[in-house]
Amino acid sequence: TARWTAPRAATSGNNDGDDVRTAGLARLTLSAEDKQARDWFVDTTRSLGCRVHVDQIGNIFAIRPGLRDNTINNENAGMAAAATFAGSHLDSQPSGGRFDGVLGVAAGVEMLRTLNDNQIETEGPVGVINWTNEEGAKFPISMMGSGVWSGQISLDDAWKVKSVITSTSTVKEDLERIGYLGDVPAHFDGGIRVGAHFELHIEQGPRLEKSRQKIGIVQGVQAYKWFTIVVKGREAHAGTTDMSSRVDAMQASAQLMLKVHQIAKHGCSDGKGLVTFGRLKVSPGSVNTIAGLVEMSLDMRHPTDEGLAEMEENLYRVCKTMMNATGRNKDGGPEVTLQQDFASNAIKFDERAIECVEQSALSVLGDMEEHGGLRDGGGSHQKVQKMMSGAGHDSVRTNLHCPTAMIFVPSKDGISHNPVEWTDKEDCAIGANVLLQSVLRMDKM
Amino acid sequence: TARWTAPRAATSGNNDGDDVRTAGLARLTLSAEDKQARDWFVDTTRSLGCRVHVDQIGNIFAIRPGLRDNTINNENAGMAAAATFAGSHLDSQPSGGRFDGVLGVAAGVEMLRTLNDNQIETEGPVGVINWTNEEGAKFPISMMGSGVWSGQISLDDAWKVKSVITSTSTVKEDLERIGYLGDVPAHFDGGIRVGAHFELHIEQGPRLEKSRQKIGIVQGVQAYKWFTIVVKGREAHAGTTDMSSRVDAMQASAQLMLKVHQIAKHGCSDGKGLVTFGRLKVSPGSVNTIAGLVEMSLDMRHPTDEGLAEMEENLYRVCKTMMNATGRNKDGGPEVTLQQDFASNAIKFDERAIECVEQSALSVLGDMEEHGGLRDGGGSHQKVQKMMSGAGHDSVRTNLHCPTAMIFVPSKDGISHNPVEWTDKEDCAIGANVLLQSVLRMDKM
Ligand SMILES: NC(=O)NCCC(=O)O
Ligand SMILES: NC(=O)NCCC(=O)O
Repeated sequence: TARWTAPRAATSGNNDGDDVRTAGLARLTLSAEDKQARDWFVDTTRSLGCRVHVDQIGNIFAIRPGLRDNTINNENAGMAAAATFAGSHLDSQPSGGRFDGVLGVAAGVEMLRTLNDNQIETEGPVGVINWTNEEGAKFPISMMGSGVWSGQISLDDAWKVKSVITSTSTVKEDLERIGYLGDVPAHFDGGIRVGAHFELHIEQGPRLEKSRQKIGIVQGVQAYKWFTIVVKGREAHAGTTDMSSRVDAMQASAQLMLKVHQIAKHGCSDGKGLVTFGRLKVSPGSVNTIAGLVEMSLDMRHPTDEGLAEMEENLYRVCKTMMNATGRNKDGGPEVTLQQDFASNAIKFDERAIECVEQSALSVLGDMEEHGGLRDGGGSHQKVQKMMSGAGHDSVRTNLHCPTAMIFVPSKDGISHNPVEWTDKEDCAIGANVLLQSVLRMDKM
Repeated sequence: TARWTAPRAATSGNNDGDDVRTAGLARLTLSAEDKQARDWFVDTTRSLGCRVHVDQIGNIFAIRPGLRDNTINNENAGMAAAATFAGSHLDSQPSGGRFDGVLGVAAGVEMLRTLNDNQIETEGPVGVINWTNEEGAKFPISMMGSGVWSGQISLDDAWKVKSVITSTSTVKEDLERIGYLGDVPAHFDGGIRVGAHFELHIEQGPRLEKSRQKIGIVQGVQAYKWFTIVVKGREAHAGTTDMSSRVDAMQASAQLMLKVHQIAKHGCSDGKGLVTFGRLKVSPGSVNTIAGLVEMSLDMRHPTDEGLAEMEENLYRVCKTMMNATGRNKDGGPEVTLQQDFASNAIKFDERAIECVEQSALSVLGDMEEHGGLRDGGGSHQKVQKMMSGAGHDSVRTNLHCPTAMIFVPSKDGISHNPVEWTDKEDCAIGANVLLQSVLRMDKM
């Protein structure tokens, strides 16, 4: 079998010269750095013989023609046969790691190279996708590009989203600025057709590493929602305002955060919720002025939709209780408002696609076992784990319209969204080979 | 007696066209807006016959010659006789009111005008001071200009302070940029000599209004300290990291804030402390990344130095307890560090200067009583209140080196550091007349 050996760096960013193990990656979506990575992706896949399409939300599809179908060479992308894709994202967190997303795209590019090098012709076309704004850090809707493509977010709504990290630019303005506002419809129906979608990704959690396993066969993804909470108090002087006559938005927010935190454990029947306040802004932000306004993000997750709904009910209750708390004075406040920015239901991946991944994993690991390449002992069967994903992925979106599955590889200490995020070269290579084989298996079906 | 009638606006800022009652003022120290206000101050006082000096920290001294002394016209400022000054500040909070500080400087300018209009010659020189960065909002040392002048802060230390609100500019860079880095030594000994200092200021609290009184005769100022607290956690993925393996800097900060808040009531024997967290920054500040770092400001106050010391001990204890809390995991964290940025002891103003204010207040109010100008009934004696200041003022600094006292006028609803800050015209006028008379009384001594 064709095998891919070592990952090549696809990390343009602000990390030149730093230690490769801790430098991480800062490549916010639609930034100048993201443009560099996109240009690399377009140039590389073109040089590997692909036709490249950019859609209206900036998703990039690189397609390699298959035997059965040559309409791929048609200028009209919509006419092309549905390809089997490897897809993920090149954007990162504000201070993220070098593997989250990047691994899946880089492995997809290596898949193309391997097919070329080995002169393998596939039945149908195969390709690689770089989805726009998977992270949702800068424009707070995660899996945005794939979400628009899948029809779950309207293109207009997505274009209008404002940055919460940089200035006040919108998605559309940034797409235009970096030259990636394409003209292909950003829609599964009328835009690029995706026949199947496989995504190699780091686990971002500790389970594979803890059990000394090599490949996670991802069964599905948990539910999550994002909110913006605004707490309104009253600006006043820190030195002349009695504690009892204050409406302190910061203090009220601290209380709120601790109460909402409790919901993770005690606000859902199985105690399996997750609650995170990652972004927070205080106004006016002066040492000697009592805060008048706090705006914060809330990320809430649960393995099931029902569990998340339960948490959400408790969230509303906590916010209401805050509003009626003793701190509220005649001028009103603290006032709490809650706005939902984003929601993603719990999903299960396609059984046939999962089957492709499982067979490919066992084949790649079996191959290694034969050649003595599996350290730590144990057979190939013991080196795979069926697991759920805690994080959202573009595959959640494609799963609505085509057979989709994911491949996880181990994350050192289970850490991600952190510059120290790490996956060993060998594990990346195993994952890339499972990706290649999964795509080829699906292509044969 | 000469009497001043109505305050003139000295409010350049970003508020053109807004409702004068709610627009407030955004004139951060050493900003472009501050430069405009400084230019107005220099031009106006020069046109009123003053010699104007700018010192190395940007304090502006406008001096009107007296009968006894004409060395004031000497180019060497240090040779001039010590003048009796009215002083305060033209800088504001990021979203402050139009009276805090501005009233005292504007009333000082009106004092000069009134002296000129009435052809009053004083014994010694009199003058008006605009002190640099009284607020401490942008460069977190309050009463900075007066603090350097008084020798409590070294010029070099002050120059080096970095902005916590705008980019990364320092005090010295900003002084140079707006053209107010003067060459007069910024020191009571060798720079401009201050013979006495009177400061008219809004109360910023509710007591005068509540008791329907007109003038606060300020006896002293409470103690306060500013700290920067840094809480270090570990960045990790919001969707893949168990609640129990997180080191969440935001969550730890919320806990810390609530515990430190308790110190206001329960961390000092008389429960008269104040605790405010006004500024807070979270890193990396992404919705789906657990916070790795939180930096926040803490403002702590107490009427006495002993009370503040007690609160500080409790603060250290709370921070230590946090460090040893169960949340701390093998990688360390949450790590809490505490840095003191600023301290101001409780002070009592000079008895002679207070006496000047009291006599002037009784004279101005008695005058009004005679002419039926005191509404609400009650004699002039019932319209004054001896009181302490909760806020810091430049007078705290001058008090170390010359007779100093302050005059408070009522604040609507006791609100300050808020755009709605308000003091009625009539109350401003009463205060300005008390200021004028206090200066004249001291000049005669
Ligand atoms: N894989 C990943 O980090 N996705 C970001 C979306 C999420 O927050 O789960
Ligand atoms: N007067 C006034 O608001 N001063 C600012 C310094 C303080 O925080 O007390």
